[in-house]
Amino acid sequence: MYRTHNCGELSLNQKGEKVTLSGWVQKIRNKGFIIWIDLRDRYGITQLVFDNDRTSKEVYEKAQLINREYVIQISGVVLERESKNPEIVTGSIEVLVEKLNILNKSETPPFTIEDKTDGGEELRMKYRYLDLRRNSIKNNLIFRHKVTMEVRNFLSKDGFIDVETPCLIKSTPEGARDFVVPSRMNPKEFYALPQSPQTFKQLLMVGGLDKYFQIVKCFRDEDLRADRQPEFTQIDCEMSYVNQEDILNQFESLIVYLIKKINNKTVTSFPRIKYEKAILNYGTDKPDIRFDMKIHELNSLAKNKGFNVFDKEELIVAISVPNAASYSRKQIDNLTDWVKKPQIGANGLVWVKYESENNIKSSVDKFFNLSEIKKWIKKCNSTPGDLILIISGEKKESRVQIGNLRLKMAEDLGLRNPQDFAPVWITDFPLFYWDEELKKYNSMHHPFTSPKADDIKFIDSNPEKVKANAYDLVINGNEIGGGSIRIHDTELQRKILKILGFSDKEAERQFGFLMKSFQYGAPPHGGIAFGLDRLVAILKGKETIRNFIAFPKNNNGRDVMIDAPSEIDSKQLNELSLLLKSNK
Amino acid sequence: MYRTHNCGELSLNQKGEKVTLSGWVQKIRNKGFIIWIDLRDRYGITQLVFDNDRTSKEVYEKAQLINREYVIQISGVVLERESKNPEIVTGSIEVLVEKLNILNKSETPPFTIEDKTDGGEELRMKYRYLDLRRNSIKNNLIFRHKVTMEVRNFLSKDGFIDVETPCLIKSTPEGARDFVVPSRMNPKEFYALPQSPQTFKQLLMVGGLDKYFQIVKCFRDEDLRADRQPEFTQIDCEMSYVNQEDILNQFESLIVYLIKKINNKTVTSFPRIKYEKAILNYGTDKPDIRFDMKIHELNSLAKNKGFNVFDKEELIVAISVPNAASYSRKQIDNLTDWVKKPQIGANGLVWVKYESENNIKSSVDKFFNLSEIKKWIKKCNSTPGDLILIISGEKKESRVQIGNLRLKMAEDLGLRNPQDFAPVWITDFPLFYWDEELKKYNSMHHPFTSPKADDIKFIDSNPEKVKANAYDLVINGNEIGGGSIRIHDTELQRKILKILGFSDKEAERQFGFLMKSFQYGAPPHGGIAFGLDRLVAILKGKETIRNFIAFPKNNNGRDVMIDAPSEIDSKQLNELSLLLKSNK
Repeated sequence: MYRTHNCGELSLNQKGEKVTLSGWVQKIRNKGFIIWIDLRDRYGITQLVFDNDRTSKEVYEKAQLINREYVIQISGVVLERESKNPEIVTGSIEVLVEKLNILNKSETPPFTIEDKTDGGEELRMKYRYLDLRRNSIKNNLIFRHKVTMEVRNFLSKDGFIDVETPCLIKSTPEGARDFVVPSRMNPKEFYALPQSPQTFKQLLMVGGLDKYFQIVKCFRDEDLRADRQPEFTQIDCEMSYVNQEDILNQFESLIVYLIKKINNKTVTSFPRIKYEKAILNYGTDKPDIRFDMKIHELNSLAKNKGFNVFDKEELIVAISVPNAASYSRKQIDNLTDWVKKPQIGANGLVWVKYESENNIKSSVDKFFNLSEIKKWIKKCNSTPGDLILIISGEKKESRVQIGNLRLKMAEDLGLRNPQDFAPVWITDFPLFYWDEELKKYNSMHHPFTSPKADDIKFIDSNPEKVKANAYDLVINGNEIGGGSIRIHDTELQRKILKILGFSDKEAERQFGFLMKSFQYGAPPHGGIAFGLDRLVAILKGKETIRNFIAFPKNNNGRDVMIDAPSEIDSKQLNELSLLLKSNK
Repeated sequence: MYRTHNCGELSLNQKGEKVTLSGWVQKIRNKGFIIWIDLRDRYGITQLVFDNDRTSKEVYEKAQLINREYVIQISGVVLERESKNPEIVTGSIEVLVEKLNILNKSETPPFTIEDKTDGGEELRMKYRYLDLRRNSIKNNLIFRHKVTMEVRNFLSKDGFIDVETPCLIKSTPEGARDFVVPSRMNPKEFYALPQSPQTFKQLLMVGGLDKYFQIVKCFRDEDLRADRQPEFTQIDCEMSYVNQEDILNQFESLIVYLIKKINNKTVTSFPRIKYEKAILNYGTDKPDIRFDMKIHELNSLAKNKGFNVFDKEELIVAISVPNAASYSRKQIDNLTDWVKKPQIGANGLVWVKYESENNIKSSVDKFFNLSEIKKWIKKCNSTPGDLILIISGEKKESRVQIGNLRLKMAEDLGLRNPQDFAPVWITDFPLFYWDEELKKYNSMHHPFTSPKADDIKFIDSNPEKVKANAYDLVINGNEIGGGSIRIHDTELQRKILKILGFSDKEAERQFGFLMKSFQYGAPPHGGIAFGLDRLVAILKGKETIRNFIAFPKNNNGRDVMIDAPSEIDSKQLNELSLLLKSNK
């Protein structure tokens, strides 16, 4: 037996007991006549002591050979420590070592295995197995495990069945790019890896499973933006005989439960904001509503007053930042620089300091008189102490810009506490959007999303007017999940695919099986999928998903630890009836 | 709201209540003046009644339009039934329909949605979503869900962490064939889909995770034997600071728990049989020990007595079949035909009927006298009433043949009750076997399996003599899981790879990252993986895994429902820098 206890559990309760421990050497302090070693495992750290008087010569000498990250096994007696460390469970004891067994040596690690390591990200990715030993990464993985266990048990208790859907499916070029898998047994044919189990979960509903969930790997061959992974994990759910309200309530209760159980925070019923309203008020369909600071439109008050900067633009939008009227000239200049960065792209920033009723300053004093500016203040519901920030420009862009500024201001003012959770449902998305590049309509969510019953009449005449039974869950400005009520009628599905530019033949080839299934009694159904990686990060108060994935890939889709992808041998290619294309 | 109750819960408790139900039409009985409909959902069946007197004309007329598998929603009042059906929960009530809403129509399904369907397998695979509506398949999936929930909760409670390992990894041509995934971002390079998360779970141990599990999809591009799937699911586990005994105990407790919890059967500590002993006693390393009937060797008693059939062969093996002495001549002839089938391949069958001490008959009376045959009887531990069956032939083959006959006899005699569970650990596997085709040693399990410490000295001189710290779990003759204590020493790992025929360069290219990781304090570790599909089937008393997978593939690796794999368009190929090889 390698151990009687782990390194995180001994206390004065075991005083005088003989114990055996195994673990890694975290730290060594050698005073010549006495050696202390911190022994570490997943569960904690226990202090070992070797001393000239009480430890046998043989063991004492062996202890001198030990280095950081050596794997050792010891036996000894639990003693009360003289200087206790109340910070850790084992802080009142130490183990006087009687037997020592070096289980494995270690070279000096390329970076320190400490909470604050000296290793850069690339190095830590290459030696991910060493990075996993650090508390921060290890605890993230344990945290993720806790979340998934809670999710599964909650859904199972509510009657959802965990069903595995296949990984080797059919390529559907619609949407993001598929990863494909050449078939050896069916030469020149390919499987695709699922971007989501969408069609399969719908077929499970047609099959009468009623309530389905799965925590499942999905794949997207996208050019990776920062913090995206080619493989990611979804909590995938679907229900039959439900309308939108049923689904929002079901999954609201899941999120409320998680935040309570995991974070011990109480959130109550989530606000529901229509897509259009979210864009108007927050400049985004992923609003952070931990704070208010809504966007106000000043067109009617500020246009055509002779200020060219405003007059020439489509839209003038403002936010009123609480308690920021005291911002210095320099601070405001910095904000102006910030909005003019290419990533934000605004032309500039107009400001009004509303210090008090009698003390109002602005950057456009020359163009607007006090009574005009007071109208802006009123429009923005400002209170004394507010700083009003104004951006003008093209309609869409300036709304996005002021939305970004809104987030920055909240960040600066400490209004975005990661331990506060402000979930919100965004509803009533448009069914389609016009893709300028491809000159065709695309689905805002996916082609299986049902239109609102009242809007079906506009489907031919004015597709952009059609709203969808679709919804997103947003927490703290991050999209955590999204879903919809699905189409369950063959004819409507065919029509939607036509509007999306599918020929009848192509629609049949790609989705014929689904439309066929609808002819055999498909029930009304709908569902949702949550991004697990993101959800876990948010619940932990973080935003970088990579730290919540055991073996992430880098921005080129490479696993630098195992060096994948890599070349394969010609025999493999041959068996797959494939050739590599020579360079052009 | 589509329903107030499901179709499996109403009873006399709800008598007089107004309810709303949704579901599929299972059965219609139209008597002209009264119509009964069985309404079905996942949870059960509820009887609906429409009658001329009490149902409005409009609803009654609409009810006439309904057909099998239509999806309907009804509201009505719960009434006590006149003729009750005690077999089902809802058997005492019926619902008198007041409102009827046809939610979706259905064409006549291509096969009947009944426990005993008229649909052949191919047709049911094509319309899998309809097959899922049948109780047998549906209940299998619900059963699978229950098993996975129990497994996860059991392991989590024991301190195991569910960690997701990557799906896009590196191809290692050793072992079975990989499925590969061309990388677009890294042209001419490929990912591979994991045959198992083996190296990653070992890295998690190097990373200090201590106890890991995952229920995970694995992939093997093999020519499919009956009831194999290109993608399958493993319960994958690994532990640090353990020896073999620790692992056997840990996972024995999991299996004991599952059989108790799921089947309400008590199994106690599992026998442990060494590989060599299993081959000797059962002719297989997957023995069914629900019954005894061990194999006995008769060489010393039956050879060189002038019976040419025995004299010319390497091995003479016998089983003593209890209570089968009464087999008729014809029955024994049938057995002889059976063992001579090409799938079994024996030359013939010699028999001894040990009816009583005074009544012993045999097919070789002419060659052996009674006292000789009594020695066989003694060797076989036969008791009166036994039928001794004897096969002779080459050493390996005849053992396998008699092992197969052993199973057949048990089957015939009803000794293989699928609701009895007889788990057994097989241990002490050889580390290597000689691959006659490739003229090299191969791993019996995989290259990361550690040799028994005492046998390491034979590694160069006599590799076949080296036993491994490897073990399989066998239940009722099926291999359910297997694992090993792993190598955690770089030098030993390098040596094993060399014996397996890896050049230093190739070993480094494929497994360099793992060997490197061992240099930074790898703990002793080991693990096991269970085949979930098989485990679930066995627990349900079945052997066909396909019926426990929602969307299985056929023997050509095809999903005939969605028609995958399929051709992909040239744009996709182009982006992947691939060409299809033209036919030779």
